[in-house]
Amino acid sequence: MSESIIYPFRLGLLGGGQLGRMLLPEASKLAIDVHILDPDANAPCRPFCSQFVQGSITDFDTVYQFGKDKNLITVEIENVNVEALAQLQAEGVAVYPQPQVLALIQDKRLQKQFYQENNIPTAPFVLTDTQQDLHAHTHLLPAVHKLGKAGYDGRGVQKLQHADELHKGFDSPSVLEQLIDFEQEISVIVARNTRGEIALFPPVAQVLDPVYNLVDYLIAPAELPETIAAEANRIATEIITRLDMVGILAVELFVTKDGKVLVNEVAPRPHNSGHHTIEANVTSQFEQHLRAILGLPLGATDTLQAAAMLNILGEAGHSGNVAYKGLDKVLGMKGVYVHLYGKATTKPQRKMGHITVTATAESPNPQEDLQQKIQTLKGLLRVEAANL
Amino acid sequence: MSESIIYPFRLGLLGGGQLGRMLLPEASKLAIDVHILDPDANAPCRPFCSQFVQGSITDFDTVYQFGKDKNLITVEIENVNVEALAQLQAEGVAVYPQPQVLALIQDKRLQKQFYQENNIPTAPFVLTDTQQDLHAHTHLLPAVHKLGKAGYDGRGVQKLQHADELHKGFDSPSVLEQLIDFEQEISVIVARNTRGEIALFPPVAQVLDPVYNLVDYLIAPAELPETIAAEANRIATEIITRLDMVGILAVELFVTKDGKVLVNEVAPRPHNSGHHTIEANVTSQFEQHLRAILGLPLGATDTLQAAAMLNILGEAGHSGNVAYKGLDKVLGMKGVYVHLYGKATTKPQRKMGHITVTATAESPNPQEDLQQKIQTLKGLLRVEAANL
Repeated sequence: MSESIIYPFRLGLLGGGQLGRMLLPEASKLAIDVHILDPDANAPCRPFCSQFVQGSITDFDTVYQFGKDKNLITVEIENVNVEALAQLQAEGVAVYPQPQVLALIQDKRLQKQFYQENNIPTAPFVLTDTQQDLHAHTHLLPAVHKLGKAGYDGRGVQKLQHADELHKGFDSPSVLEQLIDFEQEISVIVARNTRGEIALFPPVAQVLDPVYNLVDYLIAPAELPETIAAEANRIATEIITRLDMVGILAVELFVTKDGKVLVNEVAPRPHNSGHHTIEANVTSQFEQHLRAILGLPLGATDTLQAAAMLNILGEAGHSGNVAYKGLDKVLGMKGVYVHLYGKATTKPQRKMGHITVTATAESPNPQEDLQQKIQTLKGLLRVEAANL
Repeated sequence: MSESIIYPFRLGLLGGGQLGRMLLPEASKLAIDVHILDPDANAPCRPFCSQFVQGSITDFDTVYQFGKDKNLITVEIENVNVEALAQLQAEGVAVYPQPQVLALIQDKRLQKQFYQENNIPTAPFVLTDTQQDLHAHTHLLPAVHKLGKAGYDGRGVQKLQHADELHKGFDSPSVLEQLIDFEQEISVIVARNTRGEIALFPPVAQVLDPVYNLVDYLIAPAELPETIAAEANRIATEIITRLDMVGILAVELFVTKDGKVLVNEVAPRPHNSGHHTIEANVTSQFEQHLRAILGLPLGATDTLQAAAMLNILGEAGHSGNVAYKGLDKVLGMKGVYVHLYGKATTKPQRKMGHITVTATAESPNPQEDLQQKIQTLKGLLRVEAANL
């Protein structure tokens, strides 16, 4: 396809958030014009794209009209109108990741069934249609009840510890999944291009914030036994191959205390757990996504420097116009890379940016060096409300 | 100043070319809004900035009106209206680099006098006002005759080998400079922030295209004797300090066959000879420029990987709408970074982009490895006219 990139080349992107914002500089390096559809007039991407269309990414007509004159369509969020994308694809517009892949991943029930049908290790589960159904499956407790659709960042997810909590469950199509007592949560980002070539980034270790169940920080590459890393890579490769998917796929996995590797969830787009690749790897996940969907050769994924990534979340008790505090202290540390997402307003726990920090080259123990730097960085850069 | 960055922060940038285009992603990471003034409706920056104003950067009123409501003004090209910037500065708008520095650097005559007054080693020269004046200075031949103002990329520069060529000289204020029979041409990029802190990037070796006298490719870091590198760094530090300048300064130097280091020219902005820093150094020259003018701590300049940078020039005999050939071959090579500038039309020798290639980590001889990769890359990516 690359030889047939006819300039000006119009890439349509559904979603204009921080993931798109980090994709745009990579598109500009290839002289690709990016047109963005997002409902938010203040979307982080708006100032940096060739054309911004304010509109719903879940409405058939809006997505279809937006997509008609594009050379290629991709997404930075999976909750989009798949029917419109399928129609565009039928009419000859290239759509990567493919609509059928998005449809499957949008529905946690279909996603789990896909793993089961393809013998991809995942937590035991049952599908439920009503809250009542839960009573027949108490043997799975403690468990997590997940809405089939529209769950995102912890929303639509309910922990069920004991049988007397079933009333907290969802009364609509969901999946009840046995709670995995995992040793570690890791993530593998895999890319597959239009030629079927596959490339894997080294696994990263996710450290979750126990309160908010969001990624607190991650360490890349993860310290893992050879066999665990190999199994994680095997599973990621198997999933993207079985999906016959083109693009970037983030595969989140549990490593159990007895050394099993189970897939948790996947995201068919650049992912929070791959932000460090911008500075720490030969190719970034954003460039890799573009290479994959444009039919270019995939880039090398080697680690240049061990790194940690810390999300910058809005301060508790602060809502309103954004003010950043401590930027000079953070930038005074060596090997620190600040990425602010340019959101006009902050609220508690909102993702406002991230910091990547690289290990000191001379450090005898990079992992420890990174842990220490993360502890120093925590709270150093604060996102507050200017009007408080 | 960093603690007093009040968001939204409006940075005004004079010039919207490729240097600005590479600066914009760094500004977005700091959530800085960049407003751009450029006469070209199709300026490479236009799709990627918060606001684009089409207008002359050399007209007093246009620059003054553009700058009035900005928090800070900077430039990506030195040929701007300095009087307007001085007026804005007098009215309290921060302007970095400072107007007086731009005024001095805009005029090659003032620049040479500055070196002389500050005992900064440079090629012997005399100032000339008319072509007739040249006859009194034939002892300097072979020499280069440079127009005092508006010379850029070889324009306004005339080689004078013999006395019988003096009629080729300029009949307006110029500087006649003895031709230096140099061993090597190198470049040092130095940054100085509002606190007077200074940081130097390792020297790079420039390899010029003998025909067009533009940088053909460069190798970073340059292989230099300790003493030469130290003298180059001393000169760069001396110049930015004596100029009392804030921002990035690219210092181009000659290394003579007898081991002297002489300053050739300087540019008070990110520079072609610093593009490799995007991938090859801890901090890029573009981030460093922003850190310097925003009063933030300067970033580390350490080399992460040895690199070479090759300019992508429009193919001879091709003018018109741009078509890129060989992108897939180039991106199939490991450690290659393509930067297209997104110019709508090409013409012979127009700077259309650049390629940075990094040395293979395992390579016993990185410099040789890079030389070979450059030879492979040459001609692999071709910028042709689509309508031919």
